Amino acid sequence: MSKILDELLASNKAYADKFGTKRDLQATPIKKFAILTCMDARLDPAKFAGLSEGDAHVIRNAGGRASDDAIRSLLISHKLLGTHEWFVIHHTDCGLEKFSNKDIDEKFNLEPGNSIDWLTFSDNEKSVIEDVLYIKKHPLVPNSILVYGYIYHCKTGKMIEVREATKVGARQI
Amino acid sequence: MSKILDELLASNKAYADKFGTKRDLQATPIKKFAILTCMDARLDPAKFAGLSEGDAHVIRNAGGRASDDAIRSLLISHKLLGTHEWFVIHHTDCGLEKFSNKDIDEKFNLEPGNSIDWLTFSDNEKSVIEDVLYIKKHPLVPNSILVYGYIYHCKTGKMIEVREATKVGARQI
Repeated sequence: MSKILDELLASNKAYADKFGTKRDLQATPIKKFAILTCMDARLDPAKFAGLSEGDAHVIRNAGGRASDDAIRSLLISHKLLGTHEWFVIHHTDCGLEKFSNKDIDEKFNLEPGNSIDWLTFSDNEKSVIEDVLYIKKHPLVPNSILVYGYIYHCKTGKMIEVREATKVGARQI
Repeated sequence: MSKILDELLASNKAYADKFGTKRDLQATPIKKFAILTCMDARLDPAKFAGLSEGDAHVIRNAGGRASDDAIRSLLISHKLLGTHEWFVIHHTDCGLEKFSNKDIDEKFNLEPGNSIDWLTFSDNEKSVIEDVLYIKKHPLVPNSILVYGYIYHCKTGKMIEVREATKVGARQI
């Protein structure tokens, strides 16, 4: 058995041994919000945003991008489980800002035309605004949903607002 | 300002105030693995799998499904950032098991043919096996990657192996 698997299962056993009243939690998020952020290992949304188990949905992908799959998840989060405030949180030093789609294609020996959209970006603030706008303009997203835009700073742990994104995302309220 | 936003920013300030040596973490995951799991509010992968900041990538969507976007993220996780063990972790009492694609279409007043694949499933174990297989068979995923299949139990906090999935996912090693 791999050392990684060994350690992970030992940690899980310790967690389950002290599970307590968490057994009573329900699927509906207590705080009725969702976070969309990056998979980056340095980010722990529960810690940096103060979440306990049961509080909020957390959606994560490479970049924290508003991909079709993130939209699918957000729509389910709202319509089936009642969230109505969403946070788009990108971060500093993101791999998707350091590489272009072409760079990543080359690493996989993918020819142009036979490629994947890796959702890279060259301007972090703009990428947050773009994602917030894309979410707000999606035909299945109700106007009443508040969408905030933030960048998490990996050197400080601070979430810094992308004002233009939040303005756009929250303008109906 | 919304109460949710207020509370979240206060929690973030408290976190950043004690950030300490986390400022020195790098993008490459220390433990070289990635978790793909559900956005469900009851799940805190860092807690139930014993992760500290910097350890591992965490990818989350509705259901923890191996969507195209999850595959994009896993490929980046491996090729750009060196992970080589991946955990697919679904969970009990998942919304995607309780509803069909048709149920969710109806909630959004979507007509058949103008619908979204919500990636619902009717058998949790099978959905884990399906996702592990889909990942292992993806043309850009190297055979050397270990992929494990688990179900997290919301009443106990325990990760229970889906043996057939892990056997499939780890068979090359």
